[in-house]
Amino acid sequence: MAPAKFRIGCAGLGRMGKRHALHFLNRTPRAELVAASSPDDAELEWAKQHLEPFGVILYKDYEDMLKQEGLQAVVIASVTTVHADQAIKAMEANKHVLCEKPLSTSVEISQSVVDAAKKKPHLKVMCGFSRRFDASYRDAWDKIDAGLIGRPSVFRSQTCDKLDPSGFFVSYAEFSGGIFVDCSIHDIDLALWFFGQDSMVKSVVSSGITAVQPDLRKHNDRDNAVGIVEFYGGRIAYLYASRMMAAGQEDSTEIIGTEGKLTVNMQPQTNLVNIYDRSGIRREIPGTYYGRFEQAFVTEANEFTAACLDDGKLPMKLTGAVQAVKIGCALQESLVTGAKIWFDETGRRVDKAQL
Amino acid sequence: MAPAKFRIGCAGLGRMGKRHALHFLNRTPRAELVAASSPDDAELEWAKQHLEPFGVILYKDYEDMLKQEGLQAVVIASVTTVHADQAIKAMEANKHVLCEKPLSTSVEISQSVVDAAKKKPHLKVMCGFSRRFDASYRDAWDKIDAGLIGRPSVFRSQTCDKLDPSGFFVSYAEFSGGIFVDCSIHDIDLALWFFGQDSMVKSVVSSGITAVQPDLRKHNDRDNAVGIVEFYGGRIAYLYASRMMAAGQEDSTEIIGTEGKLTVNMQPQTNLVNIYDRSGIRREIPGTYYGRFEQAFVTEANEFTAACLDDGKLPMKLTGAVQAVKIGCALQESLVTGAKIWFDETGRRVDKAQL
Amino acid sequence: MAPAKFRIGCAGLGRMGKRHALHFLNRTPRAELVAASSPDDAELEWAKQHLEPFGVILYKDYEDMLKQEGLQAVVIASVTTVHADQAIKAMEANKHVLCEKPLSTSVEISQSVVDAAKKKPHLKVMCGFSRRFDASYRDAWDKIDAGLIGRPSVFRSQTCDKLDPSGFFVSYAEFSGGIFVDCSIHDIDLALWFFGQDSMVKSVVSSGITAVQPDLRKHNDRDNAVGIVEFYGGRIAYLYASRMMAAGQEDSTEIIGTEGKLTVNMQPQTNLVNIYDRSGIRREIPGTYYGRFEQAFVTEANEFTAACLDDGKLPMKLTGAVQAVKIGCALQESLVTGAKIWFDETGRRVDKAQL
Amino acid sequence: MAPAKFRIGCAGLGRMGKRHALHFLNRTPRAELVAASSPDDAELEWAKQHLEPFGVILYKDYEDMLKQEGLQAVVIASVTTVHADQAIKAMEANKHVLCEKPLSTSVEISQSVVDAAKKKPHLKVMCGFSRRFDASYRDAWDKIDAGLIGRPSVFRSQTCDKLDPSGFFVSYAEFSGGIFVDCSIHDIDLALWFFGQDSMVKSVVSSGITAVQPDLRKHNDRDNAVGIVEFYGGRIAYLYASRMMAAGQEDSTEIIGTEGKLTVNMQPQTNLVNIYDRSGIRREIPGTYYGRFEQAFVTEANEFTAACLDDGKLPMKLTGAVQAVKIGCALQESLVTGAKIWFDETGRRVDKAQL
Repeated sequence: MAPAKFRIGCAGLGRMGKRHALHFLNRTPRAELVAASSPDDAELEWAKQHLEPFGVILYKDYEDMLKQEGLQAVVIASVTTVHADQAIKAMEANKHVLCEKPLSTSVEISQSVVDAAKKKPHLKVMCGFSRRFDASYRDAWDKIDAGLIGRPSVFRSQTCDKLDPSGFFVSYAEFSGGIFVDCSIHDIDLALWFFGQDSMVKSVVSSGITAVQPDLRKHNDRDNAVGIVEFYGGRIAYLYASRMMAAGQEDSTEIIGTEGKLTVNMQPQTNLVNIYDRSGIRREIPGTYYGRFEQAFVTEANEFTAACLDDGKLPMKLTGAVQAVKIGCALQESLVTGAKIWFDETGRRVDKAQL
Repeated sequence: MAPAKFRIGCAGLGRMGKRHALHFLNRTPRAELVAASSPDDAELEWAKQHLEPFGVILYKDYEDMLKQEGLQAVVIASVTTVHADQAIKAMEANKHVLCEKPLSTSVEISQSVVDAAKKKPHLKVMCGFSRRFDASYRDAWDKIDAGLIGRPSVFRSQTCDKLDPSGFFVSYAEFSGGIFVDCSIHDIDLALWFFGQDSMVKSVVSSGITAVQPDLRKHNDRDNAVGIVEFYGGRIAYLYASRMMAAGQEDSTEIIGTEGKLTVNMQPQTNLVNIYDRSGIRREIPGTYYGRFEQAFVTEANEFTAACLDDGKLPMKLTGAVQAVKIGCALQESLVTGAKIWFDETGRRVDKAQL
Repeated sequence: MAPAKFRIGCAGLGRMGKRHALHFLNRTPRAELVAASSPDDAELEWAKQHLEPFGVILYKDYEDMLKQEGLQAVVIASVTTVHADQAIKAMEANKHVLCEKPLSTSVEISQSVVDAAKKKPHLKVMCGFSRRFDASYRDAWDKIDAGLIGRPSVFRSQTCDKLDPSGFFVSYAEFSGGIFVDCSIHDIDLALWFFGQDSMVKSVVSSGITAVQPDLRKHNDRDNAVGIVEFYGGRIAYLYASRMMAAGQEDSTEIIGTEGKLTVNMQPQTNLVNIYDRSGIRREIPGTYYGRFEQAFVTEANEFTAACLDDGKLPMKLTGAVQAVKIGCALQESLVTGAKIWFDETGRRVDKAQL
Repeated sequence: MAPAKFRIGCAGLGRMGKRHALHFLNRTPRAELVAASSPDDAELEWAKQHLEPFGVILYKDYEDMLKQEGLQAVVIASVTTVHADQAIKAMEANKHVLCEKPLSTSVEISQSVVDAAKKKPHLKVMCGFSRRFDASYRDAWDKIDAGLIGRPSVFRSQTCDKLDPSGFFVSYAEFSGGIFVDCSIHDIDLALWFFGQDSMVKSVVSSGITAVQPDLRKHNDRDNAVGIVEFYGGRIAYLYASRMMAAGQEDSTEIIGTEGKLTVNMQPQTNLVNIYDRSGIRREIPGTYYGRFEQAFVTEANEFTAACLDDGKLPMKLTGAVQAVKIGCALQESLVTGAKIWFDETGRRVDKAQL
């Protein structure tokens, strides 16, 4: 008789929600997807075809789903604006929570999720920074942990989307929190991972342009932005985010230590094929973030399941997700005001440098 | 109520058998592993820990497993010498068959599997040439099929294992059929795929050395071998197989057409990490064939399952597996005798070239 | 009877001076090195062996060299602190001038060289930004000029030296002007080249650390520094300079346009050799700036010669060299004060952003 | 007073002759081009513009040039059919000789050059296998010589030209000696270099097709050919030559040893630029052999000059050039007859394998 499986429901069935639902349905051997909810009729229609035949119960209302008998956890992949509220409600219903990033575009609201989680220490609550589950990033981390590059000191990372001429990113910018909160949040989370989760930010400053989508300015956003994040203790992260890549998704990272350097994905590629033709030698690259990180999302689902079933340790602390939002929001603010923003060693904003 | 799953048993639980068993257990959503057999006590012990708890019934005797109520198919991953016999017995018991390559190291025995399959046209019988399920090879095939490189004319491919100083390959050579039948069989199968499954071999010739393991000669084998396979219609494949790679597994392929070229894995890599240190810039590469093709094996399990459940078409013909063995055996013979071996356009061996 | 050759003298015979002297002696067919000067006895001793046998007249005093009969030009490769003075004296003596970068670590002094050159319009005066003569950078420029990537909008570039544990860079920092003036000056010059020589800087901000050489702080310098340079018109450059690379010299550049991207040297390499061994697959990279750009220096010597002999156009304007120093100095200041520095559209420093 | 320069004349001013002439004119500091000859009026016209103004004396007749006062050496870059005759005449006139490859397409005639040279041991006579002067090949050789990869055992190399749809290669094939003698001769020479100049060939066998230029068959040639060369002592070279590359010149080499592997140019590239556009990430590659090896030709000119001036050792033995022709001719014969060709350990052809 096979062991009981972990019963999880999926909140939200949009672009990412569909993927999370299918991962838990098909690619997480120890879990079974037993429920899914969406307020959107088109999404529910999709679910009737792709989830219901496999025994998944569908809900229009998230809170109804939480009441389903035997449900043990939820994966929250709804719009960012309800992440925190849904996460807190799930905890109140004693469900484990895997929440898509960011917890919120607001530092305070993000913190409220952490506060709620502190009250339920028996629950596993994780913000899904997918890149932490990518085999290459993990290999880099292990090598650094083993001392291969000495002390990590400078961190360069970018999250750069393929140009989408449809204008999608303009409307999306209204609620995304801006390019630093939406894209660079991954890079910020990685910086905190590689520099140490307790790294304290000292200053942030950023600049951006609207090279292809000037309408982004009405949402205080940009289509290309660079930023510098200083940490106390002599460490620097510098970041680039873009919505303008011609070739595809380009998410690359360098970690420079006192004795060596590691890079991740400095030569993006869809697969191992190279094409030799009149234009030279070329390779194709993934068109989307998911194209690059699909397997990381699957690993995330499996590890979250294992941590819940076995009462194991989650691979990252929830508090880090608040730090990442805090830094992302400050970078986004600098992008608009042009000002450099300073923090003291306790994390409070201050007027000028504590040099 | 979820649809019924495809019920499969695994014959053989050695190195590859364990992997196939786990793929069907955990990574093939539409299938369930319901049985496994091995004559080997140590393998059965492993299965008691890793398969039995999930409802898999274990057998010491393969034929007993075939009698299990409801069993629909077997995956055969036992030693090569019993592949054909087990495949034929499974067909006699009306089971679908996924058989590890090669069907046999003998052309005649390989053909007997094809003959048996012809008598049971309702069964799906496939020889698992794993590389055909690899995303990169498939992408190459699609591009060629779309005419990207004109007419494929020259094919270069290699299957090169990491040096194993333990001497494993010497004892293994007694039953492997030799380096061309064991390793190059993959490249030969790819040549048939890319040149067209009905390509007729015109000549083969090969040379080999024992650079690191002279004891291979007692089994008429070599640790490095190169071969040329001419096909009627103006096409050439040239192959390299080795047991001597220092860095890891190096399986790469070039398909050269009249208007362009495609390569697969000309720059092997374990993942997307690069290491910058005093020795320069380096990357690690997979240490084993499975390290390179794990995902292809999983795809194979899923597609075999889908073809059986939906009565769909298998991705390759069984007859091709006999052609591959035929060419592999001829290359192996040339390796030993030094002679070039010729075939006429009907496939019969002839004494000299039909120029 | 072969045409007369261009007669040039070399001022300074240190590390770079020796190279310039030898380039004009041996690798510049239309020029001949006829003189060389150095106040340093050891350098003169070297010249006695390597230059004098080929007819080069040696001087301890630079001004004496300027009086040599028939001398047409000087290449100035002495210490940075005397660049400007020697350049101006050469112009006063009606010699063409090729001056190593930077003209000076001071904006005002750099400008004085430009002012002197304006009074002698018949003379060719060039500041040798070697990277402009590199075949790869030129190819990138031609492609951009042809519209391949649309409008260049974001520029990322780095000049990163191999770690020199001898402490050389600490003493060197006393006069180098700092890491942004010494290293990033190349990247700044490239940004001006790719964005357009008349690009006006809007703001600069930077951060740095001393990860391996804390003594650099006494000269207000750092061993790793990142900076952002905003230009009016919606363009951004972001830069990285380091003295800490483990593998070797890493000078790479990305130019990101509205329709594509070009990279230069994102995969550094000494040559076309790859090494496969137990550590994986690796390649070596140049250990020094000269190792990467030797051929560019030779091209520089040849093109400067041709421009002088044929009264042709120099490949770059002298005024750009002042802009580069201005931006480099501002970045260096920001490194120390932590403040962001703003400029108005006429190039004057202002107190805050003109948003 | 500068030392006297080495006075050399250039025989033949076709495609390669022009290049050799200019290398000695401009890029060989210790040599001066003092003479050039060509029976072709168009070539002489070119020389009047590009060589005569620099003091080079022109000749329609090669033997007249040999009589020029003070001439010390000739570089022979005329059509292959006169290489040997001109080389022998030069030696008779006591001139050093740098002769383009091959000495002849005939083994016997090639040997006659070696015989002539033996009679004039004071003369430097070299067959210009350009790849031996390439920095990457030399680095590979040095690493192997230092033991980095153990015993070199398998050698794979290719010389593959860009497709030239003009039909040039068809007419060229009449005198080229065929694709193995014209192209693979380089790879054969490299095999002899890396395996040891005294390596004795044991067998050769080859196959070829005419995928794009069927008219090559009238000259017994092919547009794609692969070959295997066995050497006594357990070493194998396998070769590929083609006239059909779409992207450009692809000359790559692998040397596989018992403890590691070196590759040269497995990722061809024109320079360090990568282009990111809608088609993915690509780089351009050289269109011609000269595009890849220009600097090697320059090094060749300089080292030949130095060996003559300083009575130094030439970097390769002349006898190797005969071995390379011998192997190339045997491969070419096998291409036509289909037969494998055997040699005994003294180098004589034998009827079958000495197994």
